[in-house]
Amino acid sequence: MDRMKDQWFAEDHTGAIEPKYTHTHWKIKRTLFTGQSPFQKLDFFESYDHGILFALDGLIMTSERDEFIYHEMLTHVPLFTHPGPKKVLVIGGGDCGALREILKHPAVDNIHLCEIDKMVVEKCEEIFPYVKEVLNNPRIEAFYEDGFDFLKRNTNIYDIILVDSTDPVGEALKLFGVPFLGLCHQALAADGMMVMQCGSPFYQTQFIKDLQSDMMSVFPLSQIYTASVHSYPGGYWGFITGSKKYDPLNDFQADKYEDLNFMYYNDKIHKAAFALPSYFVKQDS
Amino acid sequence: MDRMKDQWFAEDHTGAIEPKYTHTHWKIKRTLFTGQSPFQKLDFFESYDHGILFALDGLIMTSERDEFIYHEMLTHVPLFTHPGPKKVLVIGGGDCGALREILKHPAVDNIHLCEIDKMVVEKCEEIFPYVKEVLNNPRIEAFYEDGFDFLKRNTNIYDIILVDSTDPVGEALKLFGVPFLGLCHQALAADGMMVMQCGSPFYQTQFIKDLQSDMMSVFPLSQIYTASVHSYPGGYWGFITGSKKYDPLNDFQADKYEDLNFMYYNDKIHKAAFALPSYFVKQDS
Repeated sequence: MDRMKDQWFAEDHTGAIEPKYTHTHWKIKRTLFTGQSPFQKLDFFESYDHGILFALDGLIMTSERDEFIYHEMLTHVPLFTHPGPKKVLVIGGGDCGALREILKHPAVDNIHLCEIDKMVVEKCEEIFPYVKEVLNNPRIEAFYEDGFDFLKRNTNIYDIILVDSTDPVGEALKLFGVPFLGLCHQALAADGMMVMQCGSPFYQTQFIKDLQSDMMSVFPLSQIYTASVHSYPGGYWGFITGSKKYDPLNDFQADKYEDLNFMYYNDKIHKAAFALPSYFVKQDS
Repeated sequence: MDRMKDQWFAEDHTGAIEPKYTHTHWKIKRTLFTGQSPFQKLDFFESYDHGILFALDGLIMTSERDEFIYHEMLTHVPLFTHPGPKKVLVIGGGDCGALREILKHPAVDNIHLCEIDKMVVEKCEEIFPYVKEVLNNPRIEAFYEDGFDFLKRNTNIYDIILVDSTDPVGEALKLFGVPFLGLCHQALAADGMMVMQCGSPFYQTQFIKDLQSDMMSVFPLSQIYTASVHSYPGGYWGFITGSKKYDPLNDFQADKYEDLNFMYYNDKIHKAAFALPSYFVKQDS
């Protein structure tokens, strides 16, 4: 094949993202949209192998073929840990994949989306088939504003907060600091819990260790779990919990578990996701 | 960065390997060796992010930075399942990473390597620091011949057979068929078990399902387990067991488990590795 004539997309890791010199290249059929919002650069491509790719500032956010893995694992682990979640907040997550997963739980009656970049939601609604139906669901309410400002107005409300952010570089870095975690703690109900994506346990081991220290300065319980997200660097991704009361292993609601048309998540995966490699467990934080 | 001046290595997936149009590109400091054996093309590169890369016929076999994950998971899962493994055979595995891991088990007194391509072993000995010490260990004996011929001469001998092959294309494809599995069965002792790498559960779902059907036509027990191998496509890799007696979950030797300087494997990972994604469990075989 003549690579010079083909169109390929590769992530730009020239910032702080590891690995710097190892990139996935995706062969592209066509570009669906490229544009700049007030906050970031948006790209949508149609790829040969992974359906539509969605990138922010040159970093893959989701690929259509495997986004279910990331979104199911972000969502269902806390939703099958908390015994009665009613109000859930998603910060970031403008592609609405996490919202789609939360909607599978009939007992959740109030779902807020706080996404700073309205253009992300608008373009995802144009491009991804599932988004319009999700946004039209009366259980969902969207707020287009900064997560800090939104959290400051909302105290002791949510059962679960999901932080579905971009990588911890630039503006998004502030979503990984103690001030933000403290605001999440404050916005959660007395038995609430939060989950955020936290990068690669293999490539960002020390970053995640430090983040867990921060999390444990705010919450009494914090754990790391993982999933195989093929479109992210190394194909292995971490999620971190911060919880006031419930432990995702001890409090897993096994009796309430049912298969809500999951493609990745299941009860065995729930428990297995918390087994961490020795290199991660052994490394001093 | 000027990509045209930099030297990069990417796998060639123009054969039967999925994904065809999604490749990891590795920035290379220098080429350490390129040559053709009677069986295949050998390449060794020094990369920026992953240490030395070793490729056969254009497909990554190991990267120095994460080969421990693949080799530990191939080896220690069966070695902590069988209650008293003494004799172990590795078919393929000329990079000697599996041998290095088996040597960590003091009770194994006899380890055979059957590698068709002597040049692989010789070049790995020149290039990877750990290989010479492994090959000098008196518990190890190497045979440079075809795996079929070797197995035909050896009946009812081994406690464990590890098949550490290249991808199932070309010559290596025959290592994934019933005739080969039957010879392994015959070479195993009455309570023996085998493990082989079997590709990506995400990209080769149907191939692995079919392989498991074949395995169960030969062995009474067969299971799939997985590991996050970052240098393989999608970062998620499968292993398949064929066993005459022992089940890796029910017969896990928890009382014998000890940390033999593992960097990935541990007792929690052993059990978690058998939890499979819903898309895999649900798909009809």
